[in-house]
Amino acid sequence: MTSRLTFGVLGGDRRQIALAESLVLNGYEVYACGFDRTGFAADVKKGSLDDIVRECGIVILPLPVTDDGVFLKMDFCEDKIALDDSFAEQMRGKRVFGGMMERLYRTSAAWKEIDTADYYTREEFAVRNAVPTAEGAVEIAMREYAGTISGSRSLVAGFGRVGKVLARMLRGIGAEVTVSARKPADLAWIESYGYRPLLTADIGGGEPYDLIFNTIPAKIFNRRVLSDLRGCSLLVDLASAPGGVDFDAAEKIGIKAILAPSLPGRVAPKTAGEIIRDTVCHMMGE
Amino acid sequence: MTSRLTFGVLGGDRRQIALAESLVLNGYEVYACGFDRTGFAADVKKGSLDDIVRECGIVILPLPVTDDGVFLKMDFCEDKIALDDSFAEQMRGKRVFGGMMERLYRTSAAWKEIDTADYYTREEFAVRNAVPTAEGAVEIAMREYAGTISGSRSLVAGFGRVGKVLARMLRGIGAEVTVSARKPADLAWIESYGYRPLLTADIGGGEPYDLIFNTIPAKIFNRRVLSDLRGCSLLVDLASAPGGVDFDAAEKIGIKAILAPSLPGRVAPKTAGEIIRDTVCHMMGE
Amino acid sequence: MTSRLTFGVLGGDRRQIALAESLVLNGYEVYACGFDRTGFAADVKKGSLDDIVRECGIVILPLPVTDDGVFLKMDFCEDKIALDDSFAEQMRGKRVFGGMMERLYRTSAAWKEIDTADYYTREEFAVRNAVPTAEGAVEIAMREYAGTISGSRSLVAGFGRVGKVLARMLRGIGAEVTVSARKPADLAWIESYGYRPLLTADIGGGEPYDLIFNTIPAKIFNRRVLSDLRGCSLLVDLASAPGGVDFDAAEKIGIKAILAPSLPGRVAPKTAGEIIRDTVCHMMGE
Amino acid sequence: MTSRLTFGVLGGDRRQIALAESLVLNGYEVYACGFDRTGFAADVKKGSLDDIVRECGIVILPLPVTDDGVFLKMDFCEDKIALDDSFAEQMRGKRVFGGMMERLYRTSAAWKEIDTADYYTREEFAVRNAVPTAEGAVEIAMREYAGTISGSRSLVAGFGRVGKVLARMLRGIGAEVTVSARKPADLAWIESYGYRPLLTADIGGGEPYDLIFNTIPAKIFNRRVLSDLRGCSLLVDLASAPGGVDFDAAEKIGIKAILAPSLPGRVAPKTAGEIIRDTVCHMMGE
Repeated sequence: MTSRLTFGVLGGDRRQIALAESLVLNGYEVYACGFDRTGFAADVKKGSLDDIVRECGIVILPLPVTDDGVFLKMDFCEDKIALDDSFAEQMRGKRVFGGMMERLYRTSAAWKEIDTADYYTREEFAVRNAVPTAEGAVEIAMREYAGTISGSRSLVAGFGRVGKVLARMLRGIGAEVTVSARKPADLAWIESYGYRPLLTADIGGGEPYDLIFNTIPAKIFNRRVLSDLRGCSLLVDLASAPGGVDFDAAEKIGIKAILAPSLPGRVAPKTAGEIIRDTVCHMMGE
Repeated sequence: MTSRLTFGVLGGDRRQIALAESLVLNGYEVYACGFDRTGFAADVKKGSLDDIVRECGIVILPLPVTDDGVFLKMDFCEDKIALDDSFAEQMRGKRVFGGMMERLYRTSAAWKEIDTADYYTREEFAVRNAVPTAEGAVEIAMREYAGTISGSRSLVAGFGRVGKVLARMLRGIGAEVTVSARKPADLAWIESYGYRPLLTADIGGGEPYDLIFNTIPAKIFNRRVLSDLRGCSLLVDLASAPGGVDFDAAEKIGIKAILAPSLPGRVAPKTAGEIIRDTVCHMMGE
Repeated sequence: MTSRLTFGVLGGDRRQIALAESLVLNGYEVYACGFDRTGFAADVKKGSLDDIVRECGIVILPLPVTDDGVFLKMDFCEDKIALDDSFAEQMRGKRVFGGMMERLYRTSAAWKEIDTADYYTREEFAVRNAVPTAEGAVEIAMREYAGTISGSRSLVAGFGRVGKVLARMLRGIGAEVTVSARKPADLAWIESYGYRPLLTADIGGGEPYDLIFNTIPAKIFNRRVLSDLRGCSLLVDLASAPGGVDFDAAEKIGIKAILAPSLPGRVAPKTAGEIIRDTVCHMMGE
Repeated sequence: MTSRLTFGVLGGDRRQIALAESLVLNGYEVYACGFDRTGFAADVKKGSLDDIVRECGIVILPLPVTDDGVFLKMDFCEDKIALDDSFAEQMRGKRVFGGMMERLYRTSAAWKEIDTADYYTREEFAVRNAVPTAEGAVEIAMREYAGTISGSRSLVAGFGRVGKVLARMLRGIGAEVTVSARKPADLAWIESYGYRPLLTADIGGGEPYDLIFNTIPAKIFNRRVLSDLRGCSLLVDLASAPGGVDFDAAEKIGIKAILAPSLPGRVAPKTAGEIIRDTVCHMMGE
């Protein structure tokens, strides 16, 4: 019989493994399906989809729920789970959490009647993921740049969530940090934190930078701007696809540019899994 | 003849003095009226209201424009300037900036036809004033607390503009900083900055603090909560009137509580005047 | 009968009050003599010198032990205790701690045979006192300077204990911090912390500062250097007497200069008393 | 004819390449020998040992001068330069700088009469190299640890140069930092910086850490201590050989331990080369 206190972790990548383990450490009973090719550090019960349907009151789907719109994302298993009416029916009566759930809703009309929620759209989820994203960017810069971040002239383009956290870390390591934004209030914040403020429209106006981190999802770093940044050693693009950098132009001009999407799951799956756990727990408590 | 490049600074407190001086240092011609009892460091021209009407294309009124709704705020002068139709007519054709301008608009219907703007309602103005406000709070704590802020357990209630800046300064000095907020996303931000997060509703739940700074304009620190904070040495209330602390209860319980409104003009008039100057200049450029 | 576990706190200023109170809070029995004009928050037993001689195995004398070389320093009492052979004999058989004890040793040959120790000469004591000293300097700057420390150009002359802590606090508040030193290794440290390094010999070479804090016990800020610092608004001298500033020259040039000796006892007596307590406890444990 | 203003960069690794390039950027004429298998970004003249002997008044040897005590360290060249009397004679009349020069002095009695100096033994050199060392340690932790440094419980064992810089960076990224030391004064410094102080002898006393960085060149992390640190995910050993960790024991206990010697040259050759340049320039100016 399903229990309201039993979690089913269904498919996904290393974040889901960390999620399952951390739920067990928090005292919950956890079944996991879709991890044939890996093991768990904590006492997670491996099971089939049927086991989860039978035992679990709460199901956590991966982020994203699906890559192709047809099958559940499942990186550690050869089998496939089709997202169709039958799958939806099996979830009826459960609380179902997942990331980018609009992709799931398109797979069956039955989802309208099922208790689902998307942790990916929660503000707290995005805020907390800015930390592993920023650390991933710092790691790339440390690996690829022949100098030290400490003492470097670093530009962070954009003062959204990732820009805020990244600027703080770069300064904490010892960089001279410039941050760009468009709005006067954001520029006032940037100044109040002790960073050098720069109008985004003025990027490429002559200031030299060793390292540039882009967080703006718009083609700011086009051929013209890149030409003006010739001295820059490394440009890390953190903006969501299609990114904010003309990579062809960067290569021709001689600036090493690296596209770095989806950092949390890759550089810090343990933390990324814990962020899913905490967000889901907060949503359950509301 | 009035000049578009000539500023008239009319009435106010020490912020207006600093404003006039800093405009002169920036290369502008400045007439000031309402400062009989003081002098200026820079080459500000003292003049009458008539001089300003005749010479100045831009007029900057104080913050607030008026305390009593009848006369212009004018701390350094015995004379009074009535805010009436006649005053409004004299401003016709000029660009008029001021703080809390809705108080001015009530004094004459003519204002509808005059080019006015309120620097006080600008987001960048509020952001930048959070810095002198936070420094004023730190100064009070340093003066009134028999220990050091470094090593103290400090609570900042509220994570708005002042809370954000104040938390950063307290940690920069060396305090153990806890910050309270209501929303999960704010608590995620608080944690990401390395402060201890606390639900505002949980203040008074047993955690001991040496210093408390309130920024929430609601009676959070009522008798019951104050009783639970008995070990606290000092409570500084930065919330706008009527504040967030039951001062009678604090006194009976033995917590020293200090109401600290309007800090920027009092603790850092030079900076506060420069903030008015910058905000007005940005508004002129738009 | 004297107890090895009973403390006598004899004379001094508010630091000794805080010391006595904090020893009681740590569970010790404490007698205090020399505090007729004040009370104690904790359960400190007021007593006479005879009481202390009779009851206490450990005696803590103030910092400094004496101002005039003749009588014990005793700010809260009309009576006087002469430092002579008789006083020394009364301390025989006890562990006696005090600050600047060489002043005491000159008052009687008997001290050679008594178990005494000077907490003031301990490195950890000096390190920990740098914190209240630096906070006191920040408080002075906040009170006397019409701008904010955040955003100010601040110079710390000297990178000893106080210079190190003060530079960190100023930056934590948001200042642009320059630190001067003489040795290349110190300048390397200054740079590694992210401050702007300056050769002490180059102070006054044209760089403008809003705020200057001197920690070097040598007349660095003489007439010539002060003339070159004309734009400076405030100079706080933290060097031990006779200080490092030509105050007459500063006044003539128009730089507000403030001598700020002995800050810990004045601005943070509670912390200063706890530092004495901790240092004495460490010395007892060795 | 040799020029006093012409540098010869002789052998070594990527630091020497960066050194040669940065000397050119500073306006000096530079000959480099021992880099057949690589090129230079700036206008460095590749030459033979004879060219250097003929043209250069200043010669900079690598760090270390030699690995095997017989031949000059030369990573980018098949040829070998023997360190013998003949080599020493060729350097007569020049200023010769190098790292770990006692290894060179053993190769010929002639060195006694030659103007040599060791940049490696300079305090400023060691201080500045702490920065790339600490960044290298952070990079390793970011790569190997499945969580984020931000929010992790990190222990830095030892508060020497590297410990100081590393603790600051870890905190700047957002870790909860504990630092161990032996001396009370160091523990006082640790506390004053806001880190949690820990007696080195108390490591392994029950406190859990996610990440541990050892900087102490003594076998602190032996089998017994490692057993008490079972929850630790990663231990990075930065101590000079033979290091401070029992790696066999760590593997058996299940703690991933990484030996990370000589980080500056490997992770930030550009910065490491600039540090050699600056140190040599300071030595030349004395």
